[in-house]
Amino acid sequence: MKLVPHRVLPWRGLVQPPSRAFSSTTKRALIKPISELPDRITPTYQQRPSNTLLALEWPSPPRNILITKKKRTPGITASLVEYTTHLASTYPSINIIVEPESAAEIHEQLAFPVYTYSTPSPNSDPPHLSDKTDLVCTLGGDGTILRASSLFSHAATVPPILSFAMGTIGFLGEWKFREYKKAFREVYMSGASDAYAKLEFPESEPDSAPAPRTCPEDPLDKPLSYADIRGKAMGSTRTARILLRNRLRVGVFGPDGQRLNSAASSGDTYALNEVILHRGSSPHLKIIDVFVGGRFLTEAVADGMIISSPTGSTAYSLSSGGSIVHPLVPSLCLTPICPRSLSFRPLVLPAETPITLRLGDKNRGRDVEVSIDGKRISEGIGEGMEVRVVGEQVRSAAKEWCGGVPSIVRGLSGTEADEEDHWVGGLNALLKFNYPFGDQDAEGGHRWA
Amino acid sequence: MKLVPHRVLPWRGLVQPPSRAFSSTTKRALIKPISELPDRITPTYQQRPSNTLLALEWPSPPRNILITKKKRTPGITASLVEYTTHLASTYPSINIIVEPESAAEIHEQLAFPVYTYSTPSPNSDPPHLSDKTDLVCTLGGDGTILRASSLFSHAATVPPILSFAMGTIGFLGEWKFREYKKAFREVYMSGASDAYAKLEFPESEPDSAPAPRTCPEDPLDKPLSYADIRGKAMGSTRTARILLRNRLRVGVFGPDGQRLNSAASSGDTYALNEVILHRGSSPHLKIIDVFVGGRFLTEAVADGMIISSPTGSTAYSLSSGGSIVHPLVPSLCLTPICPRSLSFRPLVLPAETPITLRLGDKNRGRDVEVSIDGKRISEGIGEGMEVRVVGEQVRSAAKEWCGGVPSIVRGLSGTEADEEDHWVGGLNALLKFNYPFGDQDAEGGHRWA
Amino acid sequence: MKLVPHRVLPWRGLVQPPSRAFSSTTKRALIKPISELPDRITPTYQQRPSNTLLALEWPSPPRNILITKKKRTPGITASLVEYTTHLASTYPSINIIVEPESAAEIHEQLAFPVYTYSTPSPNSDPPHLSDKTDLVCTLGGDGTILRASSLFSHAATVPPILSFAMGTIGFLGEWKFREYKKAFREVYMSGASDAYAKLEFPESEPDSAPAPRTCPEDPLDKPLSYADIRGKAMGSTRTARILLRNRLRVGVFGPDGQRLNSAASSGDTYALNEVILHRGSSPHLKIIDVFVGGRFLTEAVADGMIISSPTGSTAYSLSSGGSIVHPLVPSLCLTPICPRSLSFRPLVLPAETPITLRLGDKNRGRDVEVSIDGKRISEGIGEGMEVRVVGEQVRSAAKEWCGGVPSIVRGLSGTEADEEDHWVGGLNALLKFNYPFGDQDAEGGHRWA
Amino acid sequence: MKLVPHRVLPWRGLVQPPSRAFSSTTKRALIKPISELPDRITPTYQQRPSNTLLALEWPSPPRNILITKKKRTPGITASLVEYTTHLASTYPSINIIVEPESAAEIHEQLAFPVYTYSTPSPNSDPPHLSDKTDLVCTLGGDGTILRASSLFSHAATVPPILSFAMGTIGFLGEWKFREYKKAFREVYMSGASDAYAKLEFPESEPDSAPAPRTCPEDPLDKPLSYADIRGKAMGSTRTARILLRNRLRVGVFGPDGQRLNSAASSGDTYALNEVILHRGSSPHLKIIDVFVGGRFLTEAVADGMIISSPTGSTAYSLSSGGSIVHPLVPSLCLTPICPRSLSFRPLVLPAETPITLRLGDKNRGRDVEVSIDGKRISEGIGEGMEVRVVGEQVRSAAKEWCGGVPSIVRGLSGTEADEEDHWVGGLNALLKFNYPFGDQDAEGGHRWA
Ligand SMILES: NC(=O)C1=CN([C@@H]2O[C@H](COP(=O)(O)OP(=O)(O)OC[C@H]3O[C@@H](n4cnc5c(N)ncnc54)[C@H](O)[C@@H]3O)[C@@H](O)[C@H]2O)C=CC1
Ligand SMILES: NC(=O)C1=CN([C@@H]2O[C@H](COP(=O)(O)OP(=O)(O)OC[C@H]3O[C@@H](n4cnc5c(N)ncnc54)[C@H](O)[C@@H]3O)[C@@H](O)[C@H]2O)C=CC1
Ligand SMILES: NC(=O)C1=CN([C@@H]2O[C@H](COP(=O)(O)OP(=O)(O)OC[C@H]3O[C@@H](n4cnc5c(N)ncnc54)[C@H](O)[C@@H]3O)[C@@H](O)[C@H]2O)C=CC1
Ligand SMILES: NC(=O)C1=CN([C@@H]2O[C@H](COP(=O)(O)OP(=O)(O)OC[C@H]3O[C@@H](n4cnc5c(N)ncnc54)[C@H](O)[C@@H]3O)[C@@H](O)[C@H]2O)C=CC1
Repeated sequence: MKLVPHRVLPWRGLVQPPSRAFSSTTKRALIKPISELPDRITPTYQQRPSNTLLALEWPSPPRNILITKKKRTPGITASLVEYTTHLASTYPSINIIVEPESAAEIHEQLAFPVYTYSTPSPNSDPPHLSDKTDLVCTLGGDGTILRASSLFSHAATVPPILSFAMGTIGFLGEWKFREYKKAFREVYMSGASDAYAKLEFPESEPDSAPAPRTCPEDPLDKPLSYADIRGKAMGSTRTARILLRNRLRVGVFGPDGQRLNSAASSGDTYALNEVILHRGSSPHLKIIDVFVGGRFLTEAVADGMIISSPTGSTAYSLSSGGSIVHPLVPSLCLTPICPRSLSFRPLVLPAETPITLRLGDKNRGRDVEVSIDGKRISEGIGEGMEVRVVGEQVRSAAKEWCGGVPSIVRGLSGTEADEEDHWVGGLNALLKFNYPFGDQDAEGGHRWA
Repeated sequence: MKLVPHRVLPWRGLVQPPSRAFSSTTKRALIKPISELPDRITPTYQQRPSNTLLALEWPSPPRNILITKKKRTPGITASLVEYTTHLASTYPSINIIVEPESAAEIHEQLAFPVYTYSTPSPNSDPPHLSDKTDLVCTLGGDGTILRASSLFSHAATVPPILSFAMGTIGFLGEWKFREYKKAFREVYMSGASDAYAKLEFPESEPDSAPAPRTCPEDPLDKPLSYADIRGKAMGSTRTARILLRNRLRVGVFGPDGQRLNSAASSGDTYALNEVILHRGSSPHLKIIDVFVGGRFLTEAVADGMIISSPTGSTAYSLSSGGSIVHPLVPSLCLTPICPRSLSFRPLVLPAETPITLRLGDKNRGRDVEVSIDGKRISEGIGEGMEVRVVGEQVRSAAKEWCGGVPSIVRGLSGTEADEEDHWVGGLNALLKFNYPFGDQDAEGGHRWA
Repeated sequence: MKLVPHRVLPWRGLVQPPSRAFSSTTKRALIKPISELPDRITPTYQQRPSNTLLALEWPSPPRNILITKKKRTPGITASLVEYTTHLASTYPSINIIVEPESAAEIHEQLAFPVYTYSTPSPNSDPPHLSDKTDLVCTLGGDGTILRASSLFSHAATVPPILSFAMGTIGFLGEWKFREYKKAFREVYMSGASDAYAKLEFPESEPDSAPAPRTCPEDPLDKPLSYADIRGKAMGSTRTARILLRNRLRVGVFGPDGQRLNSAASSGDTYALNEVILHRGSSPHLKIIDVFVGGRFLTEAVADGMIISSPTGSTAYSLSSGGSIVHPLVPSLCLTPICPRSLSFRPLVLPAETPITLRLGDKNRGRDVEVSIDGKRISEGIGEGMEVRVVGEQVRSAAKEWCGGVPSIVRGLSGTEADEEDHWVGGLNALLKFNYPFGDQDAEGGHRWA
Repeated sequence: MKLVPHRVLPWRGLVQPPSRAFSSTTKRALIKPISELPDRITPTYQQRPSNTLLALEWPSPPRNILITKKKRTPGITASLVEYTTHLASTYPSINIIVEPESAAEIHEQLAFPVYTYSTPSPNSDPPHLSDKTDLVCTLGGDGTILRASSLFSHAATVPPILSFAMGTIGFLGEWKFREYKKAFREVYMSGASDAYAKLEFPESEPDSAPAPRTCPEDPLDKPLSYADIRGKAMGSTRTARILLRNRLRVGVFGPDGQRLNSAASSGDTYALNEVILHRGSSPHLKIIDVFVGGRFLTEAVADGMIISSPTGSTAYSLSSGGSIVHPLVPSLCLTPICPRSLSFRPLVLPAETPITLRLGDKNRGRDVEVSIDGKRISEGIGEGMEVRVVGEQVRSAAKEWCGGVPSIVRGLSGTEADEEDHWVGGLNALLKFNYPFGDQDAEGGHRWA
């Protein structure tokens, strides 16, 4: 059988071969625009009765992989190079997308081109990114995942996110970096076997394979072949597991009713954790009118207010006294920050209830903070501002799962019954939920002497 | 048109006419068994896209009305007499069911018979009650509603509940007693108009109408006629509104795996608010193993644990530091009571997640308290006991609403957009949610001097 | 008896008579420097066994009265004019000090001179103010009292503060403005009767009395005479009552150990409520090392930390989840603001324990907020900053009461046993402490329909 | 020098010599009444300016040592035997007192007599115990310390308590059992050196020394001699450190004003942690009127109310949401248990403020629980009951320290500056105060898979 890679991935035909012909210095210089990439492949998510996690199913294998990394953390760049090199050598049909800063930083160390995008205007997503990205991988902690998800903050459909912790595991992540080969392979292979039927593999011509392989004797480093496919893609029982995290749809409006949180045309912003309205650098209380389902609920006199998704219930909302809400409870949390009231208890509302926070004219000063997922999105507007929020719908009218942030979680390590464990495990391991009293950690003869 | 009441309500033919022939003294003595009543009429609940409340729809008008009242509260008996008298005179085809104590207390004051049931054995529902009751009315507060709902605590389908506050309105109730005529009429008329087509009305023979009418000139006191039907039953826009309150399904098991909370055959008990496991009269901490979704979550060292429905989130769970959860968020709240831990925050879990509390063998003493909706259900069992809970399903596989406690709430007082207000209103009015600081209540010159 | 006002108040001799000779337009223009005033008279505070409030005792009647008012509130200026006019006409030996803005605003409306001070350099007290002020009166709310107290934030001894609420009573205030005549008279007369022996009164020469009297028939508007003295100053049972509010002594230091919170020489700043360290306008968590009694207690990852006095326990600390601490419990409260921990419970520590907050080098950004009593005191310093706090000593070695903010509270309205009520009353009236549930406020037929 | 033990300890002369003459079987049988012991020696507590801990000072060495142990814990009996044997052999002038059960259990294993008391009538202290006990040692956890302190719950002066943890260290304890020799020696030697001047030591006649020595080569096992004294008792810098824990004085009264908590004559009961009033085994809310300083504060509708000492602030009060209060803050904590109110925040009140809880006539049922330090003290009384509490005075009019529970804490392990560490250390080690988030405990590749 003849190998015709350019039929399957015609854009690669145009791009890759010349790059290979380049001298090594030239090769390194290659940063390409994502607009040249083939269009995005969108997976479906299947629910099985016995399980609250969804099964990832690619119609055909993912090709365009966005990889983001934690900023200002030296060691991570080497991991990014290692990871991209592994993907490029093992999955020849894959294209690597990185953020502009990363592209500049690493492309000279790579033997293949990387794709990137131009920096977006404020409050909008990078152009083309959501049309081209099949899968997102993050190297970092929760902040990196939040930043990755914010690259799709105006997109109705977010690609699945596979996140690797570089140090301690965060609450949104699941995988240790050292698991990257196996984890990626599982995600890549998650599809009905016929999805892979048309996939064509490079013939084993040693010279055509990309040169620097991280560990040639590791089977996970060998280019994928039919043998793998036959063994792996066996339907939904072996596919990657998805926790679909509902987002919030947020609109921020000035006193004149004009949108503040996004470039004119792009509409609402999606938040993974929460949106907050806060006194910011003013040392005085803010007075915020809260409307629930279109009706006035209360006047909050407080440092601020949080509207969080269930995912965000373990973030800022938790610090402010909110309950811990399981990510699969379709709800919004309304949590005050330091309310000047003894009787303002956090509320958990139906996801479909619209909530509005309005900064009335009793407030002096303009330095209010509005932040989405830890990113400040507005400045210089105070009095009259409104934040309008509603939970994202994650099932279409036809009851298909869509929207949300599809987070790839552990699912294959044990039996099916073991799959639901993650969130509960995270409570104990990460949040130190109900951590027991006593001196059990003390060793040696003295407790603290 | 000929009136044939016994065709529609054959059992009335047997019962009512003789009673009418009785002398007034004899009449009063009539207490009949509910087994004689016609079978229950079960309404359906329609959801409209614009509205989270459901619309009540009777296939044919309700006939068997259970009325419960608060205990140990003198004035309420007079109200019960007034209410039953109104119903009997205005809706001649209606049958009144009351609790055994009430029957004994009031039947002599009535010109018509009342139905009642025999006291059930412990931990089971009154026999026949759930097969015969079309509608429940309560006169009292939240405790009375809880007690009414507990009469159906082994029934998968609870009749709609219309509750009248006798003093201050509670959190579960909605209606003032003085609204009873209008409220009942609305509920009674909630049905597609053809439901009433077959209904036959008494001819206006003044002598056949029951004698003592509370206020004859009030149109709501006149026996219902076609005129009313034509004007009222106009489809779902004018029907009574239902808040379907999910319950918990609770099983309590001894160390030997034997059920403790219900008579052998009757299976799980349904709770409207919550189930609690508590140290009871022992002055020492209990050690409770908590399992979520079949997995060990944590060992709670505490006074006790609460598993509550969203409805119950404003009851005991709130007092124990839980969040306020809207009754339409499909969830369970897991709230510790005085946990011996700084880090045991309340959890909100998906309604379909099974939760188990197990009293391990580290506990001394047997005097543990297990209570459902404020009613103690077990005694003398400690170590090894298990409480197993899961949220009730309120939609059938065919997506029909069923189960839950269908609570009749205000819905017709304003425009459709006004209908959702109740819960939010209750937060402010009843819970004094976020009650503002300051001396606004102080009048006159001195605050507290 | 000859009137020799200049003997008692020699400085008035120089000042007042000329002013009286001025034409009325000229008179109004008089704003004088406080440096011209006689030196401050410092009262003592007596404790009686039966009572936790102290008794105010002037060695001789107060002369220099500082009056501050709420800013940006139109109606209050008229009250200030009314109040100063009353004092000037009724207590001829009294001198009125006002803030510079107030002086400019009102002096033209007055028939007597006012004293004022020059605006101080940042982080220092107005020059001379604490050497000249015998008594402070505030017209406004808690914010006005805090601002008044902050005028003495580098002074070891604060004059007694008499505060009038202009609208709703705050938590730190006690008196309604309409009580001003009686309240001031009580304070003025609080002294051993011999304190007043040397006081000389203006002869009742009608023409020498200042012209515009607010209400001439009111005995409290008549110039004070021996008759009043004889009747009033009867020792400690009839004296004004003082709640001595402990302050915090706060030092803020840069990474180089240099003081940031006060002009070079002036040392620590006193806080009445609290000092806070906060993330300010940065949307990210701060990492704060907390030392108690010189030892490392914990690393707080939070929005910020509060160290409050017992007085401040009902201010920001309360909003952040702190307990309510009675102002007479000698303690400091350490309360985190939105801590990223499930197990950071507020602490109440002995007043004499030094506490240090240090912003370690894990923090990015410099925009940290340090505020004392709601006033931001530092900018542009982040990493390495330290806030050092210790409770103020309010008893000297000789067990005399000194320091603190002597707040004049109700004490004479009833019997001695009634005197302690204020704080408890404030909990209920102002904080809505344990405000009861239920619809008791609802009137009319409907709760919220 | 002639040994005249009977001069110093005349009662020993009567008792000990005969016992030595006994055959070993006879000896073992000796259990003696504490009434035969010499009178109690009461130490003083010295405060030094630099230190909040007090220095223990015996006027003469302690002689009568009460040792209590945890119940129902098999291994502990062996430790008790080891400990008493060590004391008896090393400090020949010491007398061992144990609880009646322990006496019965261990006396046969000992070569010396033990003293004990008869079981007291309910709600009173064991007769003579507080007149005879110089020092208390506990082997167990916090519960054992609470029980030991409750043996003196009607005594104004509690002997110092030296507590040894047998497993994990509790919050009230300080010492590991393996430190017992050193810890006891320090306590024994804490006194001005002249206190020991009159002490006479047994001559080193090997045969007169008690036989079974735990470890003869250990210098701490050798009978104390002048050499030790000269080296050790060097004034307050080397003495044991005392944390004087304030107690509560509690009176429980029936509706008729009659005391319920103690035998007629014995008056108030002292609590180390707290007194609680609780719904007990009734599943319904209690309605409790709370009075502070003689005035009505609020009506608590709750599971119950806690009034705790600062020591008790980390016990039940903490579980109920109270703040953590340092044991040296002179205060009382008023903490509700599951209050039916959003706005009932815990209060910290001055220690000298009397607080009363009254169970009004709105309460049904009689099964209310009143517990002191985890011991239920009343039964069968409901409606009309009152609990009256005030903080114990720990300084006499002459400013001497007295009262409280003198707890022996670490003080000699480091420099003086190190002495204050204990409580802060306990927060971190025992309460897991502000325990950090993250997966720092996870080892290996997977967090929870
Ligand atoms: N006082 C607080 O608790 C504050 C919390 N935040 C949170 O930080 C988020 C932004 O994260 P970064 O940019 O990394 O800011 P950051 O550097 O301030 O760190 C936020 C922390 O929150 C954790 N986190 C984020 N999302 C979480 C989630 N869903 N569940 C549990 N833990 C979560 C992260 O692991 C990290 O420890 C915001 O969305 C907000 O939720 C932001 C400011 C203050
Ligand atoms: N500390 C607490 O808060 C306690 C609460 N309870 C609650 O009482 C319920 C039993 O009620 P009763 O027999 O009347 O006992 P009860 O006489 O002890 O009164 C319970 C109170 O809770 C209110 N309540 C009941 N259900 C509610 C809900 N869903 N939302 C808001 N408020 C609600 C009632 O209006 C009443 O004020 C239990 O289901 C439990 O939730 C029971 C014991 C202690
Ligand atoms: N989230 C919160 O609760 C915040 C509270 N504050 C507090 O505001 C104080 C400054 O006051 P303003 O300049 O008027 O600021 P502001 O205009 O922000 O109002 C502060 C509020 O706190 C009240 N308050 C002040 N001291 C109090 C006390 N000791 N006990 C009870 N209530 C008290 C005032 O009556 C006012 O309602 C600060 O000392 C701080 O305690 C400041 C910022 C946020
Ligand atoms: N929900 C709760 O937190 C409850 C707490 N208790 C507490 O238990 C005490 C009685 O102790 P036990 O007889 O051993 O009962 P227990 O067997 O119920 O254990 C009480 C727990 O509290 C700890 N504890 C006791 N005093 C403490 C203190 N001052 N600070 C920190 N931890 C402390 C003990 O180490 C033990 O872990 C009572 O005084 C009460 O404070 C009692 C019942 C319920």
